[in-house]
Amino acid sequence: MYRPQIKVLDCTIRDGGLMNNWQFEDCFVKAIFDTCCNARIDYMEIGYKSSESAYSRDENGAWKFCDDADIIRVLGEDCADRGIKLSAMADIGRIEYDDIPPKERSVITLIRVACYVHQIDKAIALAEHCMDKGYEATINLMAVSRAMERDIDEALNDIAKCRVPVFYLVDSFGAMYCEQVERLAKKYVAALPGKTIGFHGHNNQQLAFANTIEAIIHNCNWVDGSMYGIGRGAGNCPLELLVSFLKNPKFDPRPIYDCVQHEMIPLREKIEWGYHVPYLITGVMNEHPRSAMKFMEAPKRGSFVEFYNKIADGTTLE
Amino acid sequence: MYRPQIKVLDCTIRDGGLMNNWQFEDCFVKAIFDTCCNARIDYMEIGYKSSESAYSRDENGAWKFCDDADIIRVLGEDCADRGIKLSAMADIGRIEYDDIPPKERSVITLIRVACYVHQIDKAIALAEHCMDKGYEATINLMAVSRAMERDIDEALNDIAKCRVPVFYLVDSFGAMYCEQVERLAKKYVAALPGKTIGFHGHNNQQLAFANTIEAIIHNCNWVDGSMYGIGRGAGNCPLELLVSFLKNPKFDPRPIYDCVQHEMIPLREKIEWGYHVPYLITGVMNEHPRSAMKFMEAPKRGSFVEFYNKIADGTTLE
Repeated sequence: MYRPQIKVLDCTIRDGGLMNNWQFEDCFVKAIFDTCCNARIDYMEIGYKSSESAYSRDENGAWKFCDDADIIRVLGEDCADRGIKLSAMADIGRIEYDDIPPKERSVITLIRVACYVHQIDKAIALAEHCMDKGYEATINLMAVSRAMERDIDEALNDIAKCRVPVFYLVDSFGAMYCEQVERLAKKYVAALPGKTIGFHGHNNQQLAFANTIEAIIHNCNWVDGSMYGIGRGAGNCPLELLVSFLKNPKFDPRPIYDCVQHEMIPLREKIEWGYHVPYLITGVMNEHPRSAMKFMEAPKRGSFVEFYNKIADGTTLE
Repeated sequence: MYRPQIKVLDCTIRDGGLMNNWQFEDCFVKAIFDTCCNARIDYMEIGYKSSESAYSRDENGAWKFCDDADIIRVLGEDCADRGIKLSAMADIGRIEYDDIPPKERSVITLIRVACYVHQIDKAIALAEHCMDKGYEATINLMAVSRAMERDIDEALNDIAKCRVPVFYLVDSFGAMYCEQVERLAKKYVAALPGKTIGFHGHNNQQLAFANTIEAIIHNCNWVDGSMYGIGRGAGNCPLELLVSFLKNPKFDPRPIYDCVQHEMIPLREKIEWGYHVPYLITGVMNEHPRSAMKFMEAPKRGSFVEFYNKIADGTTLE
C-alpha cells in the first residue's frame, strides 16, 4: 500500500544548473517540464529566485532568476494548468524580499528557502514572507552533516514555532550513510509535530537513492530527484529510480526513461555530473564538493591518490 | 569500533569477466592482484573453475578455468605468499570433481560454489568435496529473489546440517531494497547458527553498496566488491566505496583509487558495465539481466520505453 502523502519534487534544472550556470537550451527545459507533467511528478523546481543585482545575466542563464516572463515563454502560457506545481529555490543572502512578486502575479507555487544552520532565523523570516505573499514554502537546512548538534537542536526549536509547514533534511555533501539518515529523520520528525519532513540527497557514495528510501521509511514525505541524477558534483537521487520504486499508481516512469534516453544521455556527453572518485572522497570526508569539482574541471586531471591525500591531510585545495 | 570478522572479497576478474568472456590482458589481471594485495583485501576471486570439456578456450579467457599454471604465470611465483587468499567460483553442472586438484597442488585457497535453490544438495556435495581436498568453501545461493519461501527454508535446513561454514545471500538481479536484504539476512543468520553469512549485491538500482551496508548491519561478515563496480550488467558493489566505508585500519583505499584511475576508467571505454536504464528495469522487475545485456550490446539500441513495456508485459525478449 503506497503512502499518498509522499510528494516528489524534480530538481533537474535547479540543481543541474549548478553544473552549467543554468545555461540550458529552452527546448531542454521544456522537455524536462513535459516529462514531469507526463510522469505526474508533484513539483518541478525550475531554478533559483535571485536578485539581478547579485548575479549577472551574462554569466547565468534565466533559471538563476526564474522571472515569470521566462518561465511562461519557455514552458508555455498554460504551464500553471498542467497539473504540476512549479517551485523555485531562494538562497539566504542572495535575494531581497522585493524580488519576490505577489503570488497572483507568478506561475510559481512553491518557494524553498535554503540556508545554513546559522541563518535559520533569516530563513524563517523569508519563508514566512513568501507565505504572506501567497506561496507555499519550505526551509531546506543545508550541510547538516557538519553542523553541531546544539545548533541543530536550536534550529529545530525555531522551526517548530514558525508557520513554515515543510522542513528538509539535506545531505549536501553526500556524506551520510543510512544510519545517519535514520537518526536525523527521526530527530526531525520528533521535534516537529504537525510538520512535513523532506529529504534531498547527493550521490557521492552512490547512496542518494538508498538514503531517500531510508528517509521514506522514517516518515519523510517530500523527496527530491532529478533526471538521471543530474545535480552538483555527483548529483542527486535519480528520478527514474525513485519513481520506479514508489508504488503510487499515479506515477508513470516511462516518460522519465524516455527523457533519460533522449535528453539526459546526450547532455551527459557535455556535462560530467555523477559518481566519480573525487566526489566519493569529499563525501567520505564530509567536505563540500567544490575541491572535487575543481579537480574534475581541470584541463588535465591530477591523481586521485594525491587528491585523497590532500583532503585527508586537511590541506586546502583552493 | 570496526568488526574484525568482516572479510572483503574482490570479484573484479570473476564477475567482470562475465562481460568479456574473461579475455583480460595479463597485465590488467596482475594490476588487480597487486591492488588487492596493497589494499589488504582478504580474498581475490580470480575466476571460475570450469571443465575444459564444457567450454572452449577459443571463446573464453584463462579465468574461465583458473588453471594453476595460468595463475602463477600471471600473478607470479610468490602469489600464494602475498597475504591475500585466492578464490575461484564453481557453478553447479559446469565442473567435474576431477577438475579440482588437491589443495596442495593449487595456489587457490577458497572455492565458492554457486547454485540455484533446486541445486542445493549438489552444491553441498561439491563444497564438501572441495573441503575434503583441503580448500575453504562457501555456498552462494543465486537468484534468491525469485525463489519460493518454502524452497529457501528447505535449503537453509540443508545448509545448517552441512559442514560448509559460509553461506552467501546473493541479489543476482539487483532487485532487492534494504528491507528485503534485512529480512533475508536475519533469516539466514537465525537459520544458520555458527555459520558465517556473506552478501553479494548487484547495482541495477544503484543499491549494491547500500545493500552491502545493510547486510553488514544485519551481521553478514563476508562482503564482495569489485573495482569501480565492474560485473555482469550493472555490476557489483564498488570496492572503492566499500573499503572507504569500512573502519578496519588494515584496509587502504588508495591503491584502489589508483587502480580505478589507471585501469578501470580506461577499461570502461571498452566494456560498458554499470548503471543503465535497461538494467534498472530488469532489477525493478526482478528479472535476469540477460535481456538488458542483449539490449545494451545491440549495434543500434532500441527504445528504453519499448524495452520497459515488453518486460512489464512479460513478453520474452530473447
